[in-house]
Amino acid sequence: MEIGQHISQRYNEELEDIRNQVLKMGGLVESQAEQAVKALLESDFELAKAVANGDEAVNQMEVDIDEECTRVIARRQPTASDLRLVVAVVKVITDLERIGDEAEKIARYSKKLAKKQNITRMHSELSHMSQLVLTMLHDSLDAFARLDADGAVRILGKDQQVNVELDNLSRLLITFMMEDPRHIKSALRVSWCARSLERIADHAQNICEYVIYLVKGKDVRHTSLEHIRSKYFPYDIEDGEE
Amino acid sequence: MEIGQHISQRYNEELEDIRNQVLKMGGLVESQAEQAVKALLESDFELAKAVANGDEAVNQMEVDIDEECTRVIARRQPTASDLRLVVAVVKVITDLERIGDEAEKIARYSKKLAKKQNITRMHSELSHMSQLVLTMLHDSLDAFARLDADGAVRILGKDQQVNVELDNLSRLLITFMMEDPRHIKSALRVSWCARSLERIADHAQNICEYVIYLVKGKDVRHTSLEHIRSKYFPYDIEDGEE
Repeated sequence: MEIGQHISQRYNEELEDIRNQVLKMGGLVESQAEQAVKALLESDFELAKAVANGDEAVNQMEVDIDEECTRVIARRQPTASDLRLVVAVVKVITDLERIGDEAEKIARYSKKLAKKQNITRMHSELSHMSQLVLTMLHDSLDAFARLDADGAVRILGKDQQVNVELDNLSRLLITFMMEDPRHIKSALRVSWCARSLERIADHAQNICEYVIYLVKGKDVRHTSLEHIRSKYFPYDIEDGEE
Repeated sequence: MEIGQHISQRYNEELEDIRNQVLKMGGLVESQAEQAVKALLESDFELAKAVANGDEAVNQMEVDIDEECTRVIARRQPTASDLRLVVAVVKVITDLERIGDEAEKIARYSKKLAKKQNITRMHSELSHMSQLVLTMLHDSLDAFARLDADGAVRILGKDQQVNVELDNLSRLLITFMMEDPRHIKSALRVSWCARSLERIADHAQNICEYVIYLVKGKDVRHTSLEHIRSKYFPYDIEDGEE
């Protein structure tokens, strides 16, 4: 799939510009998620504070890109793959903005957790889960940047692993709270951070689904992974480095 | 604002049809949220089970309405308020679908909680918060149905009350867990239900913002409530029955 096959050079530029803005927004959101996780894992109060206050740029980008998309629809009346691009962008930026929200939430809890010394025991589980989620996010943005449906479909289904991690962490948290009730408040906050991570994974999956829609022209939301793979990817897709 | 001022009768019908489908989807989602809350508060295992499995119809509606919107953009090349309607619908149904997801989550936790007898003490707090959230959802759908920007702006800001309720409930949960560690697991599940309720309130707010965008043509996301009120609603808006 290629963007910008129009006789109007200006129209090509507009579409390309929208895509670039989404990539920029994605980069910003990814960095916020990374920083929020870093603040959480390293109990870095100052970093947490910075991330908790840094959501506005992302919000503004969402509004701007939305406006630009509406303008292009009204002015250029896009069809076929151009229209899919614009519709996918409108959806993707909603997910990006919400990933930004979740990063902000993690940062807010991290601020409170940074002053407690008793969460170190949960670090290894949390760090494992975070790594998984941040990789999913990175790969989904990468799939969007390269309009890579194969890359996108490889990411679908990874939320199952995230759910397993979340279950493990929840069990650990319960043990931890039972051992010493003074840990309850912190553990509850850690559990909310974990749920925010789970949401980020959900949003990353949504982005992948829009990439597939964009490239293949098929809406694969709410469709089983087996069905998607056999119907739209009848060839073998390597499973990456795993 | 009126829909259907076109010479093409078919086009008018298409726009009206999209709007009706959204209202239908909204009705279904609202009923799922209500049922999920009922299952939670009444420890009704069977009802919880039914809600936990009833998400598919909502998902299918989202896909269908999305397709219909893309088709209308491609075929009718809507402009001005018609374009805003279509764009708002594309956004609103994403929120509706996610409210359906949250209802499903509440139902899933309710299934597990239904077998525990120890959550009754949290009922009054939970029922208060649920009522607030369900009313917000109902009123936001109502504002969308009647394209009522005044109604929508009245709902904005109510998430602050939901946050207060959430804080109260969290404090209660912590006390509850401290008193008896055997309550920890259930209390954790209740806290997750509460967070799902909080999200439903967030999504209801989003819907209100789209209603304002639709009617006033202004994107009011990420704008302070004071600013919205003074700029776009310079007249007095009654605060309802409160």
